[in-house]
Amino acid sequence: MAPDSKSSNDLLIHNSLRSISYKRGSLQLLDQRKLPLETVYLDIQDATDGWNAIRDMVVRGVPAIAIAAAFSLAVEVANFKDFNGTSEEAASFIELKLEYLVSSRPTAVNLSDAAKKLIEITSNVASTSTMPESVFQAYIEAAEIMLDDDVASNKAIGSYGSRFLRDQQKIVPRFSVLTHCNTGSLATAGYGTALGVIRALHAEGVLERAYCTETRPFNQGSRLTAFELVHDKIPATLIADSAAAALMKESRVSAVIVGADRVAANGDTANKIGTYSLALCAMHHHIPFYVAAPLTSIDLYLSSGEEIVIEERSAKELLHSQGGLGEQVAASGILVWNPAFDVTPAYLITGCHY
Amino acid sequence: MAPDSKSSNDLLIHNSLRSISYKRGSLQLLDQRKLPLETVYLDIQDATDGWNAIRDMVVRGVPAIAIAAAFSLAVEVANFKDFNGTSEEAASFIELKLEYLVSSRPTAVNLSDAAKKLIEITSNVASTSTMPESVFQAYIEAAEIMLDDDVASNKAIGSYGSRFLRDQQKIVPRFSVLTHCNTGSLATAGYGTALGVIRALHAEGVLERAYCTETRPFNQGSRLTAFELVHDKIPATLIADSAAAALMKESRVSAVIVGADRVAANGDTANKIGTYSLALCAMHHHIPFYVAAPLTSIDLYLSSGEEIVIEERSAKELLHSQGGLGEQVAASGILVWNPAFDVTPAYLITGCHY
Repeated sequence: MAPDSKSSNDLLIHNSLRSISYKRGSLQLLDQRKLPLETVYLDIQDATDGWNAIRDMVVRGVPAIAIAAAFSLAVEVANFKDFNGTSEEAASFIELKLEYLVSSRPTAVNLSDAAKKLIEITSNVASTSTMPESVFQAYIEAAEIMLDDDVASNKAIGSYGSRFLRDQQKIVPRFSVLTHCNTGSLATAGYGTALGVIRALHAEGVLERAYCTETRPFNQGSRLTAFELVHDKIPATLIADSAAAALMKESRVSAVIVGADRVAANGDTANKIGTYSLALCAMHHHIPFYVAAPLTSIDLYLSSGEEIVIEERSAKELLHSQGGLGEQVAASGILVWNPAFDVTPAYLITGCHY
Repeated sequence: MAPDSKSSNDLLIHNSLRSISYKRGSLQLLDQRKLPLETVYLDIQDATDGWNAIRDMVVRGVPAIAIAAAFSLAVEVANFKDFNGTSEEAASFIELKLEYLVSSRPTAVNLSDAAKKLIEITSNVASTSTMPESVFQAYIEAAEIMLDDDVASNKAIGSYGSRFLRDQQKIVPRFSVLTHCNTGSLATAGYGTALGVIRALHAEGVLERAYCTETRPFNQGSRLTAFELVHDKIPATLIADSAAAALMKESRVSAVIVGADRVAANGDTANKIGTYSLALCAMHHHIPFYVAAPLTSIDLYLSSGEEIVIEERSAKELLHSQGGLGEQVAASGILVWNPAFDVTPAYLITGCHY
């Protein structure tokens, strides 16, 4: 997308740091594997490109994944020269492509929820219209609304979370918070969830300092969150994941705020590995621990966190630098246990703000 | 040292993995910065070489540092062609050199304690003999005894720790333990402290599996502990530091065992950053948390952990791979808080076994 684009569909032009650059018929994704050293956008032309980008971690963060998937199919159908089929066949085409896209990251509930909603919308149009173009047009518009909703939802989370924390911390004029992984503009359509709250705290002049963890083994904290914080000129300090307890003991942070990959009906929260450890340390130090996530992260079909299946990722993420792509770091021959997420029980979470 | 050396002073020949290779008049240190990819020994000819090796992290681990420092001066004086001075001047020479060596790592209490003892021994000899050679000879012999004592002490820690853990875990025939940082042959004169206990458990057939953390930011776990465990064919698995809480929640480990950089009189223990977090998580999961350290790690002049000054290390360790020597990982411009150690309060430690 050209920087001077004026398209009304370019809902992200107001974000200085964009993970998803979209206008109708055109989609570029910021290759987050190359951050923070290079800012490279990959052109996405169809669902296959989208599937590969999600699987290969070009784009990450559950809200961003869902939107990137939906848009990859939106640009594919927007660029159809001709589609020789009925409106029902157009709806079936979209359904098949969305099911394929969901397979790129089966544990991301936002992605499968978004796919279900989009399938429903296009099926409804197909049942009332004989024009396949109407089905594609409805799909494209629904995907664009998803993006708009995600940004609006993030802004609301930021504003609500900031007000809530200010109320909790009202005895001090400014306070510091700790966050984990990346939940910012790079993980969402824009602004962010937990990092959105930090952005709002900073905008309102009450943030002393944001601390972010490295977030081993993929370093989403040191590469992405640090990148966003520096970019936005928010006072920020990077720590090793294992230094969080010492940080809390020294009373350097007044709250911990993280995002969520999936929240069960009872409030148990699956999030990036290390979240559970932070919650335990926060409880010991009487520091409030908050989860900031959109409603779409809640899976009411899961009664508790015990039902959440934790994805195990490649050993290479620990054995080599750059999340497995770089030089060898660890000893040859060592086995690795690399769970992508852990589950923080609801009783450790001071407040879930959806 | 030639692999076929038969010197009676070669007390380490029985260790397959040697960080310190010494015979009288000759010292080589394994360059631990190059592990696990390369096994390179650096020739150390005098106290200046020793000082640089300690400061540059060629050798690390407080017991190993003390011995490397003492031996660097031992080879220097062993190779004196002629020393034109009195025995008092010889003792002064040793005292000055030892004070210089202590300045390479001021927070390592073992190093300053060892220096004090060696200074006392050589002063005593100087007061009863007029021959400078007698002073040097006494120094060399005292340094060699230090090495012998360290290995014997480690073996005793291993044997005692293993018996203690077997008694605690007697309901199960085999159990798994988690360790942090490197406390093995590479950190000591040989065998190891916490890793010595793991070696003993394995030798006695009761170890199901050893889990080791990466130990960010310098990766002593993934580079060194993993290297030792693979080398010794001990069943072992590497995890991210932040995955330890999830490991405990899944009941995969029956105990946590770590070393100590410094233990205060009340039992508060300074150890590699992340130890405190592991102790908090272990307490929450009712998993016993043990510290295995020699008597020399105890500093009775410190009444509690609050008096322990925590060294902050270079930001580069988090910003770049390979402990700061490799490629850039983190976002440019981000500030870093990089404490080398944290303090685990005595109440979180199930047993201190000295």
